[in-house]
Amino acid sequence: MEAVLGVLNLGDFAQNFSKMGMFPVFDLAYYIVSILYLKYEPGSVEVSRRSPVASWLCAMLYCFGSYILADIMLGGSPIDYFQYNSHILLASAVWYLLFYCPLNLFYKCVAFLPVKLVLVALKEVVRTRKIAAGVHHASHAYHHGFFIMVIVGYVKGDSTLIMFKFGPTKASLYGAILFTMQEAHWLPVSKSTLILAFTFFMASSKVVMTARHSHGSPFALIESWVCHLLFGSPLGGSEEDHHHPPAAAPSSPLKTKEELSDGARKRKAKKAE
Amino acid sequence: MEAVLGVLNLGDFAQNFSKMGMFPVFDLAYYIVSILYLKYEPGSVEVSRRSPVASWLCAMLYCFGSYILADIMLGGSPIDYFQYNSHILLASAVWYLLFYCPLNLFYKCVAFLPVKLVLVALKEVVRTRKIAAGVHHASHAYHHGFFIMVIVGYVKGDSTLIMFKFGPTKASLYGAILFTMQEAHWLPVSKSTLILAFTFFMASSKVVMTARHSHGSPFALIESWVCHLLFGSPLGGSEEDHHHPPAAAPSSPLKTKEELSDGARKRKAKKAE
Amino acid sequence: MEAVLGVLNLGDFAQNFSKMGMFPVFDLAYYIVSILYLKYEPGSVEVSRRSPVASWLCAMLYCFGSYILADIMLGGSPIDYFQYNSHILLASAVWYLLFYCPLNLFYKCVAFLPVKLVLVALKEVVRTRKIAAGVHHASHAYHHGFFIMVIVGYVKGDSTLIMFKFGPTKASLYGAILFTMQEAHWLPVSKSTLILAFTFFMASSKVVMTARHSHGSPFALIESWVCHLLFGSPLGGSEEDHHHPPAAAPSSPLKTKEELSDGARKRKAKKAE
Repeated sequence: MEAVLGVLNLGDFAQNFSKMGMFPVFDLAYYIVSILYLKYEPGSVEVSRRSPVASWLCAMLYCFGSYILADIMLGGSPIDYFQYNSHILLASAVWYLLFYCPLNLFYKCVAFLPVKLVLVALKEVVRTRKIAAGVHHASHAYHHGFFIMVIVGYVKGDSTLIMFKFGPTKASLYGAILFTMQEAHWLPVSKSTLILAFTFFMASSKVVMTARHSHGSPFALIESWVCHLLFGSPLGGSEEDHHHPPAAAPSSPLKTKEELSDGARKRKAKKAE
Repeated sequence: MEAVLGVLNLGDFAQNFSKMGMFPVFDLAYYIVSILYLKYEPGSVEVSRRSPVASWLCAMLYCFGSYILADIMLGGSPIDYFQYNSHILLASAVWYLLFYCPLNLFYKCVAFLPVKLVLVALKEVVRTRKIAAGVHHASHAYHHGFFIMVIVGYVKGDSTLIMFKFGPTKASLYGAILFTMQEAHWLPVSKSTLILAFTFFMASSKVVMTARHSHGSPFALIESWVCHLLFGSPLGGSEEDHHHPPAAAPSSPLKTKEELSDGARKRKAKKAE
Repeated sequence: MEAVLGVLNLGDFAQNFSKMGMFPVFDLAYYIVSILYLKYEPGSVEVSRRSPVASWLCAMLYCFGSYILADIMLGGSPIDYFQYNSHILLASAVWYLLFYCPLNLFYKCVAFLPVKLVLVALKEVVRTRKIAAGVHHASHAYHHGFFIMVIVGYVKGDSTLIMFKFGPTKASLYGAILFTMQEAHWLPVSKSTLILAFTFFMASSKVVMTARHSHGSPFALIESWVCHLLFGSPLGGSEEDHHHPPAAAPSSPLKTKEELSDGARKRKAKKAE
């Protein structure tokens, strides 16, 4: 992989990319997208009217939940990150503009699809960096604690875990496993290369998913096969579903409502193309 | 403000007041009032009959919940305060007397209104000191972590936060903000003066509220105006309500049931005068 | 007590017993019994089919919940124990075999009563050691923090506390109190003797209870009298119940449904003999 990058003269680019500062541009995008997702939650606008303090707290959890959880996991102060006043103020300004801007102007700007796609891509840059930093931080505290590295990297990459939302994508989990393997020297790549590659993968898949309004996972097929082999789970074959008539659905009674609606959404997305 | 206090010869008094020990008299009043509030909770007496251990745990949470939360917030051991055996034993004795005293004698004594008013005032002395200590403690750990100071001071002042009861008064929050501003040298007063002034304000407003069986907040009017200006919340004008017939109520559909019953209670309190 | 042991030449045995390593044999038994209890929970098999990650997390909580809680109580990292990769892998292997083994073979082996009785006895050996270690650890951090020692020893002895299941036996709580009294030199026995005696008591009573499918507590009678004296609780006389006709039950309206079904189970167990 290093060789391919060398040919493309990407080694230096990866090096520089992995050293680039995140504050304020990338962090701003992170806060905007995070609080945008909060505003999409049913009832959040009403809460912002009735109790601004509660709404602000939720916004902070959406923006800094991953830091809070990672600090808890490593036995530190859960509000340790709140010492960075400029980050808190920036996120608070975004929260204020998104919820209380006259005519809802700010919201309309950032929710405009082309703008949103750029912001979503920038957010994934921050996410990948946080996973890598989380794994690295944990590896300093526990030299051979590979489970701890994966856990800390995972919670660092997924802010919404603090709300007990175990997302269907699990991309942060796979990222944390990859970066832990890199930290343990089981992967023959440098960290900067891995950051670049994983950022590219995450940003592109997220942009495509946002553009298509899809909530599926790019890992669904692999996951389904691995689960079938290891745990005897029924194959949820997302590809084959399209060849069967809907009457075939009741044959797998374990399918949850969520999975079914997921399939339905995918089918709609396919038709729309 | 210092000048006014100087004229009244209050500077020395504030100095001495802020150095006065809290154990055992003030702490005792704190435990009595806290566990009294626990006994007011529906079902608490039944729990004390069926499971004394659970009842004791609740009582400890009511008495030391603010220490537990503050220790968690600063990344320490949540049971750190339980090392002070004498405090735990004093609180346990209060719990035992309040729940299991023959003929309910102890409860009848401390719930007698004049006694209760004194205890409530003493409790506010402890609360103010805890807020000031919490802000000071946090400022040592995080020199410019103003958000952290406010959070730690806030949780230190409100024991019931650990039960996820976000009280309607928020007095501890405003106290924490004031003490943080003092710590950051944005307020031109000494800490002992602020302790004296805030204690006086808290104790007097709490005594008045307890005497009138009111659950309103002394900040309601200011809050309502600030929320209106910053967040466009509808003005909840507590004064104007009385001029409208009850039929006007449905005009603000956002009013929660709690607020409504609050208004009803206020109206009754007014009539009773 | 030391004298009795001296006559029986048990002093050396206790010494050696208290120094015996727990890994891997005893720990293996601990993991098997813990995850067996998880599999008894309604719905756990279904969860293992639908979401192996969630099932694995539950299994880890059942196996290491006591370490997690004790680390939280002492202000450390809740996932500190996850640095011991061999323990995690061993527990994960047990989880995999218990839930996904073809023909459910492993489950049938370990759930076979004679095997299970041995495993249950071995588990109590580990539990007693964990209580003693927890109390000792806490006594290092807080020299006179007797309440903290009891709390840490208690949570160390009961993995299921992390799931907010306050078991009816409370044996770990009494163990923690005994070991704290030993640590404070209020009990005239050496720690190794106490470990041996408490292990013997716990293992024998647990084996008898498992063999009789009973969920009662060996302390029920003493508890009932102490509660009656201290807290005025009605005497729950477990022995006398059998002499009364069922019509006598409504005379104690405080009896919860759980207690009633407990009594019913006991009566059945008695008939079965």
